[in-house]
Amino acid sequence: MSVSDEVGDVRRAADVNAADCPSRLVLEHVTSRWGVLVLAELLDGMRRFSELRRAIGGVSEKMLAQTLQTLERDGFVHREAHPVIPPRVEYTLTPLGEEAARQVWGLARWAEDRVPSVLAAREDYDRAKAGRVHA
Amino acid sequence: MSVSDEVGDVRRAADVNAADCPSRLVLEHVTSRWGVLVLAELLDGMRRFSELRRAIGGVSEKMLAQTLQTLERDGFVHREAHPVIPPRVEYTLTPLGEEAARQVWGLARWAEDRVPSVLAAREDYDRAKAGRVHA
Repeated sequence: MSVSDEVGDVRRAADVNAADCPSRLVLEHVTSRWGVLVLAELLDGMRRFSELRRAIGGVSEKMLAQTLQTLERDGFVHREAHPVIPPRVEYTLTPLGEEAARQVWGLARWAEDRVPSVLAAREDYDRAKAGRVHA
Repeated sequence: MSVSDEVGDVRRAADVNAADCPSRLVLEHVTSRWGVLVLAELLDGMRRFSELRRAIGGVSEKMLAQTLQTLERDGFVHREAHPVIPPRVEYTLTPLGEEAARQVWGLARWAEDRVPSVLAAREDYDRAKAGRVHA
């Protein structure tokens, strides 16, 4: 079987509902807590490590480094280390990463837009639950 | 300030990059490991608990129940318990949940399509890394 046959088979067989399908890890990496935010931020263009750290509230240096390494290994992010003092490391999206970033960017904007609906739903849910307890 | 003013302010101010913004939890719930798969599965229509459990490989009863409860509380999933023996509990998407589900469904299909590219990128990355170690 040629490499292109193998690649074709992987694509046809991929199923995120199968526990051992590699597509599940692809999906988990782009939808991880920090992965989503890093991809969405890089959609605006090249960023240094320190810029990403500042832009994404609450991310630790360690988690950001791990997230970037995972995204780089998957081929979503390109890392460019410039041999200067102090070191300068720049991150950009690859074309594949841009595909992912566009989708998670849409999800992020949707989440921001729907905050009022979700907060209202949670209030209704908690009130109904409290009502059942006291009934 | 009226309730609608407050709701308007929440929407305008929402920012997933702010660590304490409620939009971040909205995003995390729809992109959680099992949340993504449950939403995508429900896009096909109503499902019983046992059907979801069977469809989504590797999910435990406890994690599925927790995921469904979180999605129900956020207003994405409607839960209908029928008073029959044995108990029958059915889950459907709300209109809000359908918005989320369409987007994560797109991400899931994209992840399946891109498995070959990601596997190839990982091989390149690991080979380059091993090369640097042995150099």
